[in-house]
Amino acid sequence: MRNVKRVVSFLFAVMVAMVAASTTVADTDALPSWNDTSAKSAIIAFVQSATDTSSMKFVPPPQRIAVFDNDGTLWASHPMYVQLAFALDRVKALAPQHPEWKTKQPFKAVLEGDLKTVMAGGEHGLLEIVMATHAGMTTDAFSQIVLDWLATARHPKTGRLYTEMVYQPMLELLAYLRTNGFKTFIVSGGGIEFMRPWTERVYGIPPEQVVGSSIKTKFELRDGKSVLVRLPEINFIDDKAGKPVGINQHIGRRPIAAFGNSDGDIEMLQYTESRKGAHLEMLVLHDDAEREYAYTCDTKVGRLCKGLALAKESGWLLISMKNDWKTIFPEK
Amino acid sequence: MRNVKRVVSFLFAVMVAMVAASTTVADTDALPSWNDTSAKSAIIAFVQSATDTSSMKFVPPPQRIAVFDNDGTLWASHPMYVQLAFALDRVKALAPQHPEWKTKQPFKAVLEGDLKTVMAGGEHGLLEIVMATHAGMTTDAFSQIVLDWLATARHPKTGRLYTEMVYQPMLELLAYLRTNGFKTFIVSGGGIEFMRPWTERVYGIPPEQVVGSSIKTKFELRDGKSVLVRLPEINFIDDKAGKPVGINQHIGRRPIAAFGNSDGDIEMLQYTESRKGAHLEMLVLHDDAEREYAYTCDTKVGRLCKGLALAKESGWLLISMKNDWKTIFPEK
Repeated sequence: MRNVKRVVSFLFAVMVAMVAASTTVADTDALPSWNDTSAKSAIIAFVQSATDTSSMKFVPPPQRIAVFDNDGTLWASHPMYVQLAFALDRVKALAPQHPEWKTKQPFKAVLEGDLKTVMAGGEHGLLEIVMATHAGMTTDAFSQIVLDWLATARHPKTGRLYTEMVYQPMLELLAYLRTNGFKTFIVSGGGIEFMRPWTERVYGIPPEQVVGSSIKTKFELRDGKSVLVRLPEINFIDDKAGKPVGINQHIGRRPIAAFGNSDGDIEMLQYTESRKGAHLEMLVLHDDAEREYAYTCDTKVGRLCKGLALAKESGWLLISMKNDWKTIFPEK
Repeated sequence: MRNVKRVVSFLFAVMVAMVAASTTVADTDALPSWNDTSAKSAIIAFVQSATDTSSMKFVPPPQRIAVFDNDGTLWASHPMYVQLAFALDRVKALAPQHPEWKTKQPFKAVLEGDLKTVMAGGEHGLLEIVMATHAGMTTDAFSQIVLDWLATARHPKTGRLYTEMVYQPMLELLAYLRTNGFKTFIVSGGGIEFMRPWTERVYGIPPEQVVGSSIKTKFELRDGKSVLVRLPEINFIDDKAGKPVGINQHIGRRPIAAFGNSDGDIEMLQYTESRKGAHLEMLVLHDDAEREYAYTCDTKVGRLCKGLALAKESGWLLISMKNDWKTIFPEK
C-alpha cells in the first residue's frame, strides 16, 4: 500500500506540474466567444491574480464565490421574463379547470392574449397569476411542470427553446471560473424552483447553488410519503436589497465577483465591492439590437439606469453585448 | 499540447485504477473510532452500494446529499444547548450597557445565575434573551462575537472548548462520505449564523452547506460600505417540519442520507426515506452516561421519544454511543 501511495503522489505531482505549465494556454482559450476587449482582459486579470498565491490579490479557494443574476445576465429575458411567459402559458393550460377565469381579471385578459390589460393590473394582478400557476402542487410536481414546459416553449423572436437562449460567453465564463476554483451561484429575482430543475444541465450550477425568490412550502405526509406542498404565500423576494440578504442566507459569505444587468442587481454588486480584498463587479449591457435586443436606459423598457451612473462612480465594469461578445447564443 | 493531454489522461486513468484498487482498504480504515457493530456495517454497505456503478442502488455523485443535525448529532448539547450557554454569557457581557436588566426578567434571573427562573419564562422568555443577544449588530460583527466566545467558553463538565466536544466518530463519518463523493450539509434547529463561522474549520462543512434557524437581516450602506444588520425578528425556524422546508429551500433536492438524534429530526428523516432510490436514516442514541450523557426517552430531559417508536416502524437505524463508538471526543 505504501508504494502505491507514493506512486500516486508522484503521478499527482507530475499532473499538477503539467496542468500548471499549460495554464496560460488554457486561459487564452477559455473565453473564445469574447472579443479581445477590455472586458475580457479585466476578467482574466482578476482570475489570474485571485489564483496566484504570490499575488497580493490572491483569494483562497473556499472564498472564491461568484454570483450571477439570471434574467438578462445568463439568458435572454426580453421581450418578456421567461417565467412570465411560463405563467401565462400555465393559465391557458389550466383554464379548462377554471371556467370562472373566462370572466375574471387578470385571467380573462391572459386567455384573450390581451397583454396590455394584464400588465395594467400591476404587481397585484401578476401576483394573482403567479399564485394561481405556481402554488397548490408539490415541489416535485412543480419541477416536472417546469421541465415539461421548457421542453417545448419557444422564444417568440428566435423560435429557439428558452434554454437555448443562454449567452454563450457567459457559459464560457462560468466554466472558466469553475476551472479556477470558483464556486458559481445564481442569485436571481426569479423563482428559485423555476430555475433549479434545469440549471445544472444548462449552466453546470447545481440546485444548492441557486438563490432566488420563493413562496412558502409546507411539509405533509400523503399516503405515508412525505411531500412539500407549495403555498400561495410569498416567502422571499430575492431582488434589489433582497439580493445581499439572499446571498447571506444561502451562501453565508460575501462574493468576490458579481455579474448582473439591471438596477435590481445594484445592491448585490455593492455587497460584493465592500468585501475586504479582491473583488470584481460587472454589468451586462443590452446594446445589441441586431443579435439580441437594445434596451439600455434611454429606451422605455430599459432596466439599467441608476446602475449605469453607479458603475461610473464605483468602477464597475460594463460588458457590451455588441462590442465584447463575438457570439451571443450557443450554436444549435 | 495534444501529447501533454494524452499523457495526463493516461496518468489520470492509472490513478483512478489505483484508487479503485485501494478502495477496500480505505473503507476499512475510514471509521476507526467506530466499533465493528451493525451500525458501522450499515454505513459502509450503504456507501459501497451508492458508489458502485454496477449496483442497483448506485447514486450519481450530484445526488449524494447527506444531511446532519448538529446539536447532539455532531457535537454535545448537554446539559444545555451550546447556543443557550452563549446567549446567557452574552447577557452577562452586555449587562453594563443595560442597567435595566438588573430588575427586568428574564435578564435578572440570567444575571443572578437562576436558570430555573430563566427556564420558567418558557419560549417567550428565551426569545427575549435571543433577540437581545443575537440582533442589533451587523452579520460580520456577530460572526466575530461567536468566534471570540468559542475561543474561551468551556463545557461545564469536561472543561473542554465546545468545538472540542464534537464527536470523533461523526467527524470520521463526514470525511468518509466526502471521500466517496457525498456533499455534507448541516441541517440544524440552531442559528445558522451561530454555526457558520466555525463549521468549515471544525467539520469541513463550508458556510454555504449550513442550514439553520435565522432572524431577518436588512441591507444598509454605512459610510459607503454595505452591511447586513441583524433584526430582532424571526425569519425561519429550522426544526421539526421546518427541516424538510429548510432542506428544500437551501439544497433543492432530497437527501439520500440523514443523521439526527432527537424528535426534531423526525421529519428530516421522513423526507429522506421518501426519496426514490437508495437512502439511509440514522439516529444517535445518547445512552453513554459514563463517557457523555444518558438522556434517552425514559429520562426527564430525553429528546428522542416519538422518534424511537418511528425508527422501529420505519427501519431507521440507531447509533448507540455506548456500544457503537470506540471513542466519543477527539484526542486533544
